[in-house]
Amino acid sequence: MPLDRLTRKPDRGSTDRSRLDALLDSQFWGTLATVSDDGEPWVVPLLYVRDSDRLLLHGSSGAGALRQAASGVPVAFSVTVMDALVVGYNGFDSSANYRSAVLRGTLVALRDPADKARLFDRLTDTLIPGRMGEVAAHTAKELAATIALALPITPDSWIYKERQAQASDPDIELDAEMTWGGVVPIERRWGQPERAPWSRAELPASVVRLQGQDAPA
Amino acid sequence: MPLDRLTRKPDRGSTDRSRLDALLDSQFWGTLATVSDDGEPWVVPLLYVRDSDRLLLHGSSGAGALRQAASGVPVAFSVTVMDALVVGYNGFDSSANYRSAVLRGTLVALRDPADKARLFDRLTDTLIPGRMGEVAAHTAKELAATIALALPITPDSWIYKERQAQASDPDIELDAEMTWGGVVPIERRWGQPERAPWSRAELPASVVRLQGQDAPA
Repeated sequence: MPLDRLTRKPDRGSTDRSRLDALLDSQFWGTLATVSDDGEPWVVPLLYVRDSDRLLLHGSSGAGALRQAASGVPVAFSVTVMDALVVGYNGFDSSANYRSAVLRGTLVALRDPADKARLFDRLTDTLIPGRMGEVAAHTAKELAATIALALPITPDSWIYKERQAQASDPDIELDAEMTWGGVVPIERRWGQPERAPWSRAELPASVVRLQGQDAPA
Repeated sequence: MPLDRLTRKPDRGSTDRSRLDALLDSQFWGTLATVSDDGEPWVVPLLYVRDSDRLLLHGSSGAGALRQAASGVPVAFSVTVMDALVVGYNGFDSSANYRSAVLRGTLVALRDPADKARLFDRLTDTLIPGRMGEVAAHTAKELAATIALALPITPDSWIYKERQAQASDPDIELDAEMTWGGVVPIERRWGQPERAPWSRAELPASVVRLQGQDAPA
């Protein structure tokens, strides 16, 4: 079930920025790719949040994960969500419905503590809406312990692709009463919250609100 | 909520091959990274299936997506699943539980039609167990239209990382009655199948069996 082959027709590359934003804002992690000093491909999954025309990434100042990427080399950041399995009339015509974006550019380190604080507030409040109203603000020490990086989103810095379609029409004669084709959606929900041993508090409103909502992939 | 920072302690890199296999076998897509001719990082999401000590990828012979990777340059293939949101006592101590693997190596093109046919059967039957018993075998034409690539899994060609832990103990004094911390799992299920307009058949056993089962990420 070749993803590429099957999706060349129903697939649409899109230059509609609102589709890119909708994808980015519905998910919370992506894969950062860069090239190591010795020319090897290098990848790491990272949480992110979009802030208008930039994608914000972060990592520990101590860990090496972002050192390569932070040094100003070109990066590609990929965000993908699989929406459904496409069950074709045969194996080869089966595929997946998906949305996918790749953003290219060079990461810019955020040095302004206020800018970094805003990034972390936004990240927390995007994942758990309202959470920053329930907990203490980020401290200067926390901000200093963290590398914050921005990937600018410019008109020609990204590509968006999706397949959002039914199983393709068979290109052979077959008995439609005997052959099932269709899509099977993947549904994602937040499960039952599990309290940490050190906590004896009731569920906060922010976590209560997650229940029943769609979860990211 | 820095993924790296928070996971340095509860996180475990693992050299246990069974953990790698469990992750690879529970998911169905990953992100392939390589380096373009002009030295830029290049990424594309791809379906895959594991076949013993190799990871099998595929794409259209016509599409350009795999041309770069197929030419024998080094690649890195990343598979990640987010299992839960970790809600810390503050924003900074929040994170995610996840499992992640990166496999490195050089792709090998499969040229033997029987080997390619086995790959496609395996891919279909891994995503939809039993489906190949319901549909026609792959044809020579279909196999010829597709590039099939193998990424060998050798003892030193992969890294595995995970965080599977509760919200960390707060490193400050706080009122445990007032502060909730914990994890909120992400649950994935197959949704209601939607039949394609060209089909008038009843749901096949393979698709019926998916219902109620966990879906991949």
